[in-house]
Amino acid sequence: MLTNNEIKLINSLQKKKERIKNGLFIVEGVKMVKELLQSNYEIACIYATQEFESTDDKIEIISDQQLSKISQFTTPNQVLALAKIPTSTKIDANSTSLILDGINDPGNLGTIIRTADWFGINQIICSNGSTDCFSPKTVSATMGSIFRTSVYYTDIEEFIKQSNLPSFGAFLEGTPLNESQFTPNCNLIFGSESHGISDSLKSKIEHHVTILGAGTAESLNLSIAVGIFCNNYYQSSK
Amino acid sequence: MLTNNEIKLINSLQKKKERIKNGLFIVEGVKMVKELLQSNYEIACIYATQEFESTDDKIEIISDQQLSKISQFTTPNQVLALAKIPTSTKIDANSTSLILDGINDPGNLGTIIRTADWFGINQIICSNGSTDCFSPKTVSATMGSIFRTSVYYTDIEEFIKQSNLPSFGAFLEGTPLNESQFTPNCNLIFGSESHGISDSLKSKIEHHVTILGAGTAESLNLSIAVGIFCNNYYQSSK
Repeated sequence: MLTNNEIKLINSLQKKKERIKNGLFIVEGVKMVKELLQSNYEIACIYATQEFESTDDKIEIISDQQLSKISQFTTPNQVLALAKIPTSTKIDANSTSLILDGINDPGNLGTIIRTADWFGINQIICSNGSTDCFSPKTVSATMGSIFRTSVYYTDIEEFIKQSNLPSFGAFLEGTPLNESQFTPNCNLIFGSESHGISDSLKSKIEHHVTILGAGTAESLNLSIAVGIFCNNYYQSSK
Repeated sequence: MLTNNEIKLINSLQKKKERIKNGLFIVEGVKMVKELLQSNYEIACIYATQEFESTDDKIEIISDQQLSKISQFTTPNQVLALAKIPTSTKIDANSTSLILDGINDPGNLGTIIRTADWFGINQIICSNGSTDCFSPKTVSATMGSIFRTSVYYTDIEEFIKQSNLPSFGAFLEGTPLNESQFTPNCNLIFGSESHGISDSLKSKIEHHVTILGAGTAESLNLSIAVGIFCNNYYQSSK
């Protein structure tokens, strides 16, 4: 059974303020909840229809109709879980970080977290005020990578100033990416889709790197640029 | 002035059937309409508020309120145009094609068209039944690249069978991407996000190529994989 208060709570978790207040976020769909069950994340509750195959003792069986009341999907997919937002750990200043200066699009952030995870980068740093990594849209787009990476929100300029690692930033003008030699540990920095890396941050980045193109399109989508960078980083730093 | 029939027509163009029937598609927002005006695409009409800066004779000035009635955006952006769907040309079998086997996500298709354009690939081939390149969401996501590329819908297996160019397909197992030597003209083939390249098509592709990763995430987002491939193709085929 699902009480009205539970329905209200779950739907309120669309909002960042409520997620922080309750320390919870939504994980939805068979694939995502299976990833959650295999992770170290603490689970508050799992609401599932009878088709969902699991023996976890946190499962409450609900009807299809009840699931549709709490689901964020047009076509609900068997299960929705509430997971606890982890207590934040300290950034490892000696490991590679993927750094995002002003990312606003929840889907893009999720895709970037998934991409970082693919290439073994498990530390993502966003500037303060960036879109929240625990929004349902971002969590979904990570395809489970949210559970294997850590996302931090901080003052990026301060972080870069204090970092001992070389910094590589994505710019429309700079050294061609394929001529750039990444170090095994470094900071990979990207600006927002609309404004790029801010001017004040730009001067603090040692290596300005650019993805060469044929010159017709004005720019690449942010997550595409991140993917291409990460692949080259992974290849050249091995 | 905007008549009720015009409002009805414009809103109906959300549907593929209506786009085909009327031979029109929607182009919205300042950046996109400016790209349209610079392109070879024929324009049926431009509905713009007074802020929109242009002297084109196809412009009808409308109010903010009227724009919000036809806009697909939460925050309308000065202008919406109706462009004519171009009459289809023949695929150039001797040039590089980016081939998509069963792409369903409109946003992904738009991002892929934008990425192809960045790397100078202007021929995109989708399998029959794939998502339509003239849907408002796809057109928006191309950021103008829709006007500089050609998108075809055809039987991909037939196309590959008849093609004289080498074919490179993205698979989870194959030759590592950075060991693959693309030819200046080739077919670059990608499967759908959920099912990859279909088995019957797989056997017709000579080169199976894979993007190496750290082994934690299960897969990459389709458009990210396309971006990484296109960058390597662009570098290695120059």
